[in-house]
Amino acid sequence: MSDKNDSIEDARLVIAIVHDNDADILESSLETAHFRVTRLKSSGGFLKEGNTTFFIGTAARYLDELMEIIDENCRERKRTISPLSPIAAEMQSYHTLPMEVEVGGATVFVIEVEQFKKL
Amino acid sequence: MSDKNDSIEDARLVIAIVHDNDADILESSLETAHFRVTRLKSSGGFLKEGNTTFFIGTAARYLDELMEIIDENCRERKRTISPLSPIAAEMQSYHTLPMEVEVGGATVFVIEVEQFKKL
Amino acid sequence: MSDKNDSIEDARLVIAIVHDNDADILESSLETAHFRVTRLKSSGGFLKEGNTTFFIGTAARYLDELMEIIDENCRERKRTISPLSPIAAEMQSYHTLPMEVEVGGATVFVIEVEQFKKL
Ligand code: NI
Ligand code: NI
Ligand code: NI
Repeated sequence: MSDKNDSIEDARLVIAIVHDNDADILESSLETAHFRVTRLKSSGGFLKEGNTTFFIGTAARYLDELMEIIDENCRERKRTISPLSPIAAEMQSYHTLPMEVEVGGATVFVIEVEQFKKL
Repeated sequence: MSDKNDSIEDARLVIAIVHDNDADILESSLETAHFRVTRLKSSGGFLKEGNTTFFIGTAARYLDELMEIIDENCRERKRTISPLSPIAAEMQSYHTLPMEVEVGGATVFVIEVEQFKKL
Repeated sequence: MSDKNDSIEDARLVIAIVHDNDADILESSLETAHFRVTRLKSSGGFLKEGNTTFFIGTAARYLDELMEIIDENCRERKRTISPLSPIAAEMQSYHTLPMEVEVGGATVFVIEVEQFKKL
């Protein structure tokens, strides 16, 4: 199958900001599904942690599929962590019992594209 | 107060490119005002200096407030510098008297968003 | 001549993703033509190689000129490489004869801008 950004009609730029932990699996899932992605190192947001910004060009008709892939790989979920884990240390936590933290999550912007070109 | 990107109606993506020197204070000012920001390391422009690119998702009704915060923290302003200062050295200046340089400044793009999602 | 992002009417944000090898020459060609550019380090796409993402603000009437400059400096082209060259090594090729590879290429998004400001 050809790439999903081969259409110049109804092109969209999708900007997805995801946690670093989810970036590699998201990238390979998108590539398996024939989306072309560009990734950039970014930071900011809750806990000031590192994150990854993806630029994904796609035709509008693939947006639902794209959202589903992002959701499957990056959805915010709770994880129970030990107070001795590196995540707990990063959070400078003084809890002494196992606790739940939220991991993952994605912020996604879909933007209309006036012109899309591959040179 | 909840974050200013909580609305899925009238969402805007604001891309602001600012000088590195102003990036930290801008980021904390935006967070104090409940804007959610993502920052990326960038470069280019006058003097080839390093700069920082911010992606800020917001509802349209907060755009004026956002612009004001960017303006307060990043506005281009003149500063009198000594010819012995590091800035003068960076400019490879051969002036021998105190001189005025422009510092700060921001380039801001406001873009309409077709879909905005938090997963 | 003044910069080509001086107009607040019909502003466009052009996002161009190009190969690292073409990034420096593209940046200087754009600056010679009075385009203002911001560049960011990115990655992804075919061969997972490093690439460079440019943000270029311009008035719509300069889009044709801009596309021509990107095309001249980044167009995808074939190059014959020796099987002993670093590029061949990177491709983990087991060919033993000179072969053709595609280099260069650019992916370009043109996006309408609701507001453009220089502070
Ligand atoms: Ni296929
Ligand atoms: Ni609050
Ligand atoms: Ni000129």
